[in-house]
Amino acid sequence: MPHFKLTFSYDGTSFVGWQRQPSGTSIQGLVEDALAALDGRRVEVAGAGRTDAGVHALGQVASVTLNRAVDAATVVRATNARLPDTVRVVEAVEMRAAFHARFHATAKTYRYRIWNDEVLSPFERAYAWHVRGPVLDVDAMAAAAARLEGRHNFAAFQTSGAETQTTERVLFSSSITGRQPLITYEVRGDGFLRHMVRSIVGTLVEVGRGRYPAMWMSEVLVSLDRARAGPTAPATGLFLVRVEYDEPEPRRTSE
Amino acid sequence: MPHFKLTFSYDGTSFVGWQRQPSGTSIQGLVEDALAALDGRRVEVAGAGRTDAGVHALGQVASVTLNRAVDAATVVRATNARLPDTVRVVEAVEMRAAFHARFHATAKTYRYRIWNDEVLSPFERAYAWHVRGPVLDVDAMAAAAARLEGRHNFAAFQTSGAETQTTERVLFSSSITGRQPLITYEVRGDGFLRHMVRSIVGTLVEVGRGRYPAMWMSEVLVSLDRARAGPTAPATGLFLVRVEYDEPEPRRTSE
Repeated sequence: MPHFKLTFSYDGTSFVGWQRQPSGTSIQGLVEDALAALDGRRVEVAGAGRTDAGVHALGQVASVTLNRAVDAATVVRATNARLPDTVRVVEAVEMRAAFHARFHATAKTYRYRIWNDEVLSPFERAYAWHVRGPVLDVDAMAAAAARLEGRHNFAAFQTSGAETQTTERVLFSSSITGRQPLITYEVRGDGFLRHMVRSIVGTLVEVGRGRYPAMWMSEVLVSLDRARAGPTAPATGLFLVRVEYDEPEPRRTSE
Repeated sequence: MPHFKLTFSYDGTSFVGWQRQPSGTSIQGLVEDALAALDGRRVEVAGAGRTDAGVHALGQVASVTLNRAVDAATVVRATNARLPDTVRVVEAVEMRAAFHARFHATAKTYRYRIWNDEVLSPFERAYAWHVRGPVLDVDAMAAAAARLEGRHNFAAFQTSGAETQTTERVLFSSSITGRQPLITYEVRGDGFLRHMVRSIVGTLVEVGRGRYPAMWMSEVLVSLDRARAGPTAPATGLFLVRVEYDEPEPRRTSE
């Protein structure tokens, strides 16, 4: 029974998110249906993490065990043939049976795109947050973003009501690049709380607008109080860029 | 009666093209309807050129005369408020009454994007031509592209049956940039024949695939024979980047 690590790229615009839901089309549902058609039985995939409705992925990862003896290249080809063109398997790698996309992830990188101009480019309408008004102060935003690096309790940037065992996470990097009209926030960490990246971005934009100084970011952080942070930025600007593993990839047959 | 030069950006995916058609939604139609609502009477815009169904624009230009005394900023705001988010007025500049977007254009720039990889990125599905198979030889393509620069009779790259007074055009630049997976062709000229850019790209890809050497491009060109050129590349990869004018812009009120 071959076990695979699958890497996906998808445009999240028309989906209810990665995870299967009672109603609406999920990416997980599409992928499981496509793999079931290949494998001849019901298949369950384990995603590295959920992405919400409208959130995109350049490198989401999932693990799956198949019944049929198929090689990685066939998995890529056969699955893509059954998926809509908004969801693509970009890589399949055969792994040891114990590999789990969520439990073994050591780091994730997210990117958030902000379009800071009066008129939103038609090509950015599903891929950025449209922030009108004055030019954002990217230097202040960069200084605020850097204040989040390290091990912290990120409770202030978690959706209220979410339940997790601990709200402590490590951010390896947290940085702002670009300038008006396109500003990009990129963050790499060992894990993320629900809506954490979007709450951070909402807070960064408050700084960029000059409503608060960069050091306010640290005040929000230590307050552990969601009510102190900025609004949750919309899903459209968010991309799951990559998921990292220490896991060796023993039999790389498709790249 | 104020006269405006309007610059548009649009995602051509769901339109029948720039020009009004007996059926289907055209960008010209949407723009004229939006301007009519602002101006209180029927309005006609003159586009710098047609773009076909599926072709995109970063900087299409049109000229229009309005009845009402409105300033450029109002034209941008009011028109965008009535357009779908796939079509945006990015700039309005008031011009002398004689200015005509098509007759006074001195140069146009087109860009064509080729996605050369086994799997097409979901984010490129409407914005590139998916060319599978072996890695394209971009050096050969660049050499072939450069052979088109200058004043030539481009009859070999015109859709058969198209009628124009002359098939002679000047290409100021014709170049290939990037490498697998994303290869970009950019061309700037004093004018273009119907399907000319897409026919050139289809021919360049034949060279990239190694089916013909770069100098074959010159043979096709001098043959004046459409049957000698490569296939017409699909509309999805094509972008009208900008239209240039010698015309001074006397009253710039919106940028």
